[in-house]
Formats: sequence, structure tokens, C-alpha cells
Amino acid sequence: LTTPVTPLSDALPPRGARGFDVEAARAAAEHQRRLLKPPGSLGRLEQVAIWLAGCQGRAIPLPISPAHVVFLADHGVAAAGVSAYPASVTTAMRDCFARGLAAVSVQARLLGVPLTIVDVGCAGDPAVPVGVVDRRIRRGTADLSRGPAMTVAEAERALDVGAALARDCVARGATLLSAGEMGIGNTTSAACIAVALTRLDVALAVGPGTGLDAAGIARKRDAVGAAVSRLAGRHEPVELLAEVGGFEIAAMAGFYLQAARLQVPVLLDGYISGAAALVAVAFGDDVAPWLCASHRSAEPGHGAVLAALALEPLLALDLRLGEGTGALAALPLLHQAVALHAGMGTIDAALGAG
Amino acid sequence: LTTPVTPLSDALPPRGARGFDVEAARAAAEHQRRLLKPPGSLGRLEQVAIWLAGCQGRAIPLPISPAHVVFLADHGVAAAGVSAYPASVTTAMRDCFARGLAAVSVQARLLGVPLTIVDVGCAGDPAVPVGVVDRRIRRGTADLSRGPAMTVAEAERALDVGAALARDCVARGATLLSAGEMGIGNTTSAACIAVALTRLDVALAVGPGTGLDAAGIARKRDAVGAAVSRLAGRHEPVELLAEVGGFEIAAMAGFYLQAARLQVPVLLDGYISGAAALVAVAFGDDVAPWLCASHRSAEPGHGAVLAALALEPLLALDLRLGEGTGALAALPLLHQAVALHAGMGTIDAALGAG
Repeated sequence: LTTPVTPLSDALPPRGARGFDVEAARAAAEHQRRLLKPPGSLGRLEQVAIWLAGCQGRAIPLPISPAHVVFLADHGVAAAGVSAYPASVTTAMRDCFARGLAAVSVQARLLGVPLTIVDVGCAGDPAVPVGVVDRRIRRGTADLSRGPAMTVAEAERALDVGAALARDCVARGATLLSAGEMGIGNTTSAACIAVALTRLDVALAVGPGTGLDAAGIARKRDAVGAAVSRLAGRHEPVELLAEVGGFEIAAMAGFYLQAARLQVPVLLDGYISGAAALVAVAFGDDVAPWLCASHRSAEPGHGAVLAALALEPLLALDLRLGEGTGALAALPLLHQAVALHAGMGTIDAALGAG
Repeated sequence: LTTPVTPLSDALPPRGARGFDVEAARAAAEHQRRLLKPPGSLGRLEQVAIWLAGCQGRAIPLPISPAHVVFLADHGVAAAGVSAYPASVTTAMRDCFARGLAAVSVQARLLGVPLTIVDVGCAGDPAVPVGVVDRRIRRGTADLSRGPAMTVAEAERALDVGAALARDCVARGATLLSAGEMGIGNTTSAACIAVALTRLDVALAVGPGTGLDAAGIARKRDAVGAAVSRLAGRHEPVELLAEVGGFEIAAMAGFYLQAARLQVPVLLDGYISGAAALVAVAFGDDVAPWLCASHRSAEPGHGAVLAALALEPLLALDLRLGEGTGALAALPLLHQAVALHAGMGTIDAALGAG
């Protein structure tokens, strides 16, 4: 598997880019009213079909062909005791992803979703296993509670890694993209981004992550507080990523940004995915219309992130694993929404004679 | 397709019936703690896997093989103006189900779920189309706002129809049963049952159904009020069905009751399904452990029905169509829960050496 890292700036919208097609969405809403059911009675499934119509530019969207990418990276802030697990777990999990043992590996197999695992900066063993794409920027970020997590140049490279992956998925036929992550300490980075971009209170942005105790949450709150006070209102997205980001979060932001530029819809995952989406939206491109929220996680700050993105999640199953498990959990709802929209009878055709 | 109508009383639990297997559920919870993820991080998906383990009596449940049945019937109370649609729509929709044009027809095709359509009492054309099983008790109930909807003998026959269908599905290999309904006026019947069995206030039990206006909701409230005042506290389930039931609701209650006796788990649908489940539970058999709530519908009384059943729904997508659309929407979550439980790596095997 080769995914050449192309600079983000090369990735202009395709010729004839139409943007999110409001007319197609309107035609889809009209079509919904003709289907064999009381208007609105399929609730959120109708909205999903109408959104996909706008993304695809057709009143009756085609069945979706998903692709999922998991970005892995380590965080220097893990040394500050902000996670229930040691940083070594990130690299250990990299092998589990390679062997198809992770939760999202199982879901991808069950649902027939092409899955790509990308190491953007694990700190452990330099030998990346077969089945994992090696795109390491560096072996883990610096501790964001003490100084910038990475350089601006590194943040740009991580954005490009994500963008290249999105292009690669689309080139291989994907018409819906989702991303997940794994990286011990990355809810701390996500919390910094959420605070910076939504003005959420630090105490509300910091949660237990994978299962932190009260003392750990206090340390995490201190780390986030130190990092965001250093930002002093600077919210340029690349600088923000450099200061408090993670390589996997920057890659996800680039992945989402590129998906929007390619006019391919995105299914978000949980808190970290939401933070990456906030960064993508902050880049000022017209990203927001291409996003769908799969779920609201158990992490307390996720609701505020979704509200800032003006997204209503499809699921709320108390998931807090990451990897994209929430996105793949919701994927069958998108398939059903499209099938119902295209496959149901219309009132005129079925009952018109009655 | 032949489904002999066997009296419910014949349907004793199979020899060696073990009941819901608490030990297997406990072993499944133990297994979840060994999987490659922070404990509890798959939230509701863990709970579903543990529930299915208890139902199947194995710590690692087998993949589920679902079957879905839709029961159709008319309601005399429709003449009281309690629906946004005329009663003739029930029979018209029967043809649409036969032709695979209904919402749940599309979902069943997409998900590969065997679907059976059963006419338990449509009022229209006596010629039941090919693709619909004819089990009509009578051509519609009497108006429940003026007197009993049916006789006790008819209620018993409808229960038996549902029970026979459950047996038939299980005989053909189903290991998870769901039921849906279609019948103009049937949220009025469901509201009567909800009021009788949960002491819900009439005003809270009555909602817009398929899209009733304020005047219609007032008529519906009057109809429900008249019916429940006639009950005067009699809550024997068969009598309750005879007074305020519908043939399809009685059939669903029999279907759920029989599923529990056969020790096969049930995925509920919306408000009407919930009312039928309340009746099944009221029969005093050990039905409750076999039930899972797929979704909370947009119908305002459904939350109270689920609370009375002590069930937390998996989805809340503002569905209000019936047919079993919510049950099939949630079905992929059950498949994923089982696959994750069985297919993920364990911490010991994957990380133990680290």
C-alpha cells in the first residue's frame, strides 16, 4: 500500500466542483414527502438521506462505499500522568491493529469496510509491522503542558499525511470517509483544542478518557490549563495544532479537510475526531456541510464539541474507545437511510389508484 | 407458507428449559473485561453482548439469525377520527407490503432478514394478496371508545396467531425475533394499554401518531379516556386486549410471549410494540429478560412504556412509522455487539508478553 504524501496545497477541488448541492438536497426532501409513509415519520433517517443527496449532488443518492482510516501516534503529555495507561500501549496496540484484533478491525470485517492503519508517530519500536502504513512524523510529540507539542512544519506534514490518505481512499472508490485514532494521552490534546475553539471551560472539557481516576483527572486538568493559557488567544489552526495537537489529530484534520475539498462526505467518530473536525472547520474551507456526527461519546466534552460543529449525533451508546468504533457503529444507519430513500414505493404509484 | 394456529397453552417451554442464563451473562461480562479495550469502553454494545449471552446460555453468543413479522389489522375506533389517515389505508398498505414497497420491506432486503406479513384483521378487500399470510380474526375491531374492541375468544385467537408465527420463525432457524405492525388507529389502542398498565396520564399517552392535528389529538384523548374509564381497574391481560386491543397488538403480545417461552430473544420496535410487550409481561410469564428495546420513538408515551418495561432504548431517531422500522434500524448494532464480543483480541493474548 503506497500513499504518496502530497502537499495539501496541491489538492485543489476537482474541476467543476459544485459544492454541497442544496438543490439536490431540496429535491431529496421533496422525494421523501412522496414516499409510502407519513411525512417525517422516518425522522433522522430522512435527514441522513437528504444530506447524502446534497453531498452526492443527486436527489436519489447512490449506495455509499465507505473507507475507514485509523491514525496512531504518541503524546509527550502522557508522561504527566494524564492517562490510565502507559504510553507503551500505543505501540502495542499498533501490532494489534496490524493483526486485526482491535474493536474497529472486527467492525470493519463485519461491515466490509476497507480499513487502513497509519502510524503518524508512535514512540515505540521503530519496526512498523506489515499492515500498518508508516507515515511517522516523529516518535511522539513533546509534552504540550510544557511547550509546543510539535513544530508548525511538523503540523503541516501531519495535515498532509491525512490529506494524502483521504485522496488515496477516494482514488480507490470510497464515497464516504471516516477516521479513528489511537494514542495514549490524546483526550488531553483534544481537550486543549476543544477549549481553544469552543471556549468550553477546562473542567468541562476534561473527562476520564479511557478510565482515569480523580487524581489523574486533576493532573489532566492542570496540563490542559497550562497549555491553553500559553495559547493566549492564538487560534490559527496550524499554530494550534503545533502547540497542543497530536500527530494523529493533525492527520485527521487534514483527512477531513481533504474529504471536503474532494466533496466526499465524512462520518465523524468521538471526542478526538470532533476536535480534529473543529480544526478542519477552523481552516476556513467549506468543511462543515460534509460532516455527519455518528455518536455522542461518554467523554463529557464531546457534547459541546458537537454543538460547536452544529451537529446532532445519530447514536449515544456510551462508547469511549475511539478507533472509529462509533463511526462504524452508525454506518449501517447510513446504508439504511440510502436504501429506504431509493427503494420504498411512492404514495402516487402505490396508492394513487385507491 | 403454512403456520398452523396452535393454542398458546400447548406451547410449553422446551424440555430442559434453563431460563435466562445469569451465569452465562456473568461469564460474558467477565470476557468483556479481558478484551483489548478499557473496561466498559464499548458501552451499550457490551451490554447487548452480555444480554445475548444470557439469552443463548453461552459466554460467547453465536451470531444471531433474525426474523421479522409484520401484523396488520384495522381498528373500529378509526371511525372516531383518531388518525390522520382513513382506515382504508391499512388494506392499501397490505398490498404494498406484499409488493415489497414498504419501509420495512426495504430494510429487510438490505439486511437479509426473513420477513413475514400477516393479516390479522384488515377491514378491506377480502382477497388477501400473495405474500401475505391470511390469519384474519375479523375484518377490523369494534370501536373501543364505545365498547369492547373484540371478544375474549377473539383476543385469545389473536394471541395464538402471534404465538404460532413465533414458533414458525424459530422452527425455520431464527434466533432473534422482532415484530412490527400497521393498522390505522392503532396508537389509540396502544395508548389505552399504556394507560391501563403503567398508570400514565391519558394526556401523556396520546400523541400525534402518524401526524394528527390538535383537534384530532383531542378526539383521540376522548376516545382513550372513554375506553380506560370503562376498564375500571380490570387489568387481566386477555380482558384488557378484548376491551381496548387491536388484533395486531394481541398477535404481537402472543408473539413475544411465545418467543420468551421458546427462550428466543426479542427486539422490540416502537410505541405499539411496547404496548404489546406490556401485555406479554402482564401475562406473568418470565418475559421481561428476553426483551431488548431498539429505539424510543417520537410518540410521547413511548418513553413511559419503556420505563415501565425497565428498558433503555439503543436508538432515538425520531422514528414514528411502526412496521418494525426501529427494530431493523437497530439490528446491525446487535450483529456488531456479537462480532466484537467474539472477534476482538484479549489483553492477555495480545499484550501479555509486553
